[in-house]
Amino acid sequence: MKEEYLKLKKHYSINMERGWPSEEQLDMVMPMLDTVSSETNLVKEVDYRAYAGTGGIDPLKKIFADVLEVETDEIYIGGTMSTTMMYDIVNKGMLFGLQGGIPWKDVPDVSFICPSPGYEKHFKICETFGIKMISVPIYDDGPDMDIVEDLVKNHEEIKGIWCVPLYSNPTGSIYSDDVVRRLAKMETAAKDFTIFWDNAYVVHHLTDEEPKILNMIRECEKAGRPDRVFEFTSTSKITFPGGGVGICASSKNNIDWLKKNSLLQLKSGDKVNQYRHALFFKDVNGLKKHMKCLRSIIEPKFKIVDEVLQNELLKYGLVKWNLPKGGYFVNVELVGVSAAKVWEICRDVGVKITPAGSTFPYGNDEKDAYIRIAPTYLACEDLRCAMEVFCEAVKLVADI
Amino acid sequence: MKEEYLKLKKHYSINMERGWPSEEQLDMVMPMLDTVSSETNLVKEVDYRAYAGTGGIDPLKKIFADVLEVETDEIYIGGTMSTTMMYDIVNKGMLFGLQGGIPWKDVPDVSFICPSPGYEKHFKICETFGIKMISVPIYDDGPDMDIVEDLVKNHEEIKGIWCVPLYSNPTGSIYSDDVVRRLAKMETAAKDFTIFWDNAYVVHHLTDEEPKILNMIRECEKAGRPDRVFEFTSTSKITFPGGGVGICASSKNNIDWLKKNSLLQLKSGDKVNQYRHALFFKDVNGLKKHMKCLRSIIEPKFKIVDEVLQNELLKYGLVKWNLPKGGYFVNVELVGVSAAKVWEICRDVGVKITPAGSTFPYGNDEKDAYIRIAPTYLACEDLRCAMEVFCEAVKLVADI
Repeated sequence: MKEEYLKLKKHYSINMERGWPSEEQLDMVMPMLDTVSSETNLVKEVDYRAYAGTGGIDPLKKIFADVLEVETDEIYIGGTMSTTMMYDIVNKGMLFGLQGGIPWKDVPDVSFICPSPGYEKHFKICETFGIKMISVPIYDDGPDMDIVEDLVKNHEEIKGIWCVPLYSNPTGSIYSDDVVRRLAKMETAAKDFTIFWDNAYVVHHLTDEEPKILNMIRECEKAGRPDRVFEFTSTSKITFPGGGVGICASSKNNIDWLKKNSLLQLKSGDKVNQYRHALFFKDVNGLKKHMKCLRSIIEPKFKIVDEVLQNELLKYGLVKWNLPKGGYFVNVELVGVSAAKVWEICRDVGVKITPAGSTFPYGNDEKDAYIRIAPTYLACEDLRCAMEVFCEAVKLVADI
Repeated sequence: MKEEYLKLKKHYSINMERGWPSEEQLDMVMPMLDTVSSETNLVKEVDYRAYAGTGGIDPLKKIFADVLEVETDEIYIGGTMSTTMMYDIVNKGMLFGLQGGIPWKDVPDVSFICPSPGYEKHFKICETFGIKMISVPIYDDGPDMDIVEDLVKNHEEIKGIWCVPLYSNPTGSIYSDDVVRRLAKMETAAKDFTIFWDNAYVVHHLTDEEPKILNMIRECEKAGRPDRVFEFTSTSKITFPGGGVGICASSKNNIDWLKKNSLLQLKSGDKVNQYRHALFFKDVNGLKKHMKCLRSIIEPKFKIVDEVLQNELLKYGLVKWNLPKGGYFVNVELVGVSAAKVWEICRDVGVKITPAGSTFPYGNDEKDAYIRIAPTYLACEDLRCAMEVFCEAVKLVADI
């Protein structure tokens, strides 16, 4: 086996590292570019070509209000991806404070709860601003709420939590109603505790089941803490990654705060591109139809991941994984095999996978057990090949 | 006169408050929307539809490198307007520090020099972050450099200066070579002193003279302080305000820092829109040709302002103004007449002008003498009417 591996060294050039949409997906979005031309009337509730309209244009707000089941005045559209908005709101928390609290920069040991494995961009935002990360286990139905409740009740310096409530990155977890309610209701020592509810995959279903999670904005309202949550979603995996639209939903109060505090900084962003999106989707049903088209490309890739893992590794008991019902990732837990070593071998033969540990705060996977598989970007044949290499690498490390 | 004014009360509804492009200008940009369609090949040095390409696409970097006479690796394109980038770099200064210095939030009384009258958005950025503003007079050739040099030499807490070097907003000043060199060379107590060089009107000429200012990036380099300056420009008054492209030029070192520190926050922004701009302009000459078309719309408006002021007020010696050679504003200095009162009367009869004092830090025009006229947005007949109301208001306050 060792010899075989050495022979393979640098043999491949396959990148399975990131959750990027494939070229085939991007091609499906090209008609969006025809929705607006020089003939299009762009003078609507405001002139989409001019400065006015902070917070987004009406027709696109309507579509995402329907997606997230909130009112249009609970929607803010700004920037070209949701990470920009998450980064920005944390940044505002640091310098100015959220919910009327003091700036976090003045809070010793300011901390966030990070259900892990989780989304490494969330963790990198914390790292950027020097926010301490507290890792909490995540299960199929969401984070360990006993631990979360205990932490936030007793630590005033804990100011936030990152959640990907539907098809968590990378575990595929689906937050249960009970978890959502407990997050909305829980007593927190910090009066300005804020939930960063990254509903990135709200329409990214991979089964007909299309599970729904409880509406966190309504639950926070019911719990008498309407300003506790900022919800995010975007079109990064729906239209053009990084060049789409970022959406934030929150209480009207928070949205007004965001509009007021983004006027100088962003004005409105590119409303013509917002309109292109609105015309392309038409309405929430049009958006869902587009997602079905994308599913037809993505679903077979998840099946390939599942199939190769089953065929190559199931019998050895070296790995545990769940085929997720949506989202963009498969989380693989290695049993008695070093994830770092598997990653290294893959790298050496030319198959890039997400660095082991990167789904944990500070890149620190104590068990050295988790690997995130990102199947969407690759063509099916490359994906199959990459997965076979991955399985060989696992076997090599396990000395099978 | 008093009676006449009372009769006019709320008679008009004219907004001359902001330096917005007119609808006629925006109409001239509409063909840009036809440059990219579903048939366009968007896979160039990177896939313009995907995540890669932080810092902007090559063809647009080339155009603005030519405009600003720098190298393409001294250009960063990010976001949809330059205010976003100025806000962001000041924000990064506050939280992380610039040029390797300590974060400004840890500098007691952190201050900026603000040549005044100046651009109120610059001052609002300072206000937002709690940066103390030190007002310095500005003349036809730039800020009073004796005062500036003295201040920065003796005050380590002064970390920056705002400059609009060509056709300053609102004075129309054109920084002389001497001023540019002195700014580049001056000894500063703060090692991380940074010049925010807002070259917003670099191509916004209103005469055939088309004056050129010295290249600040090269002058800082010559002075052995290559990282001292961030230069900005944008297409906000060239294509679509707020939905165009924001451009930053600086030393390669600063640009690398900006790219590295914006990767998580912005990734790349909308590269398809960048490409639309590149195709619309074609090259620097195409951009200049487009500016000539815009000039044909804007120039007559400046002439109307000049004409009405001459006809109505010149003989009374109540106002001083210069017809600027470019840019977007006319600065009017009132002599022995309260600007605040003139503004109030205009408001009362339904003519909105930029609030008196707003071109000074903290809105504090000690002489209560300056009014900024923004002629671009209005149709010629409305502009003439607004200017006539303005002149009547001046006469009313002067009791003529």
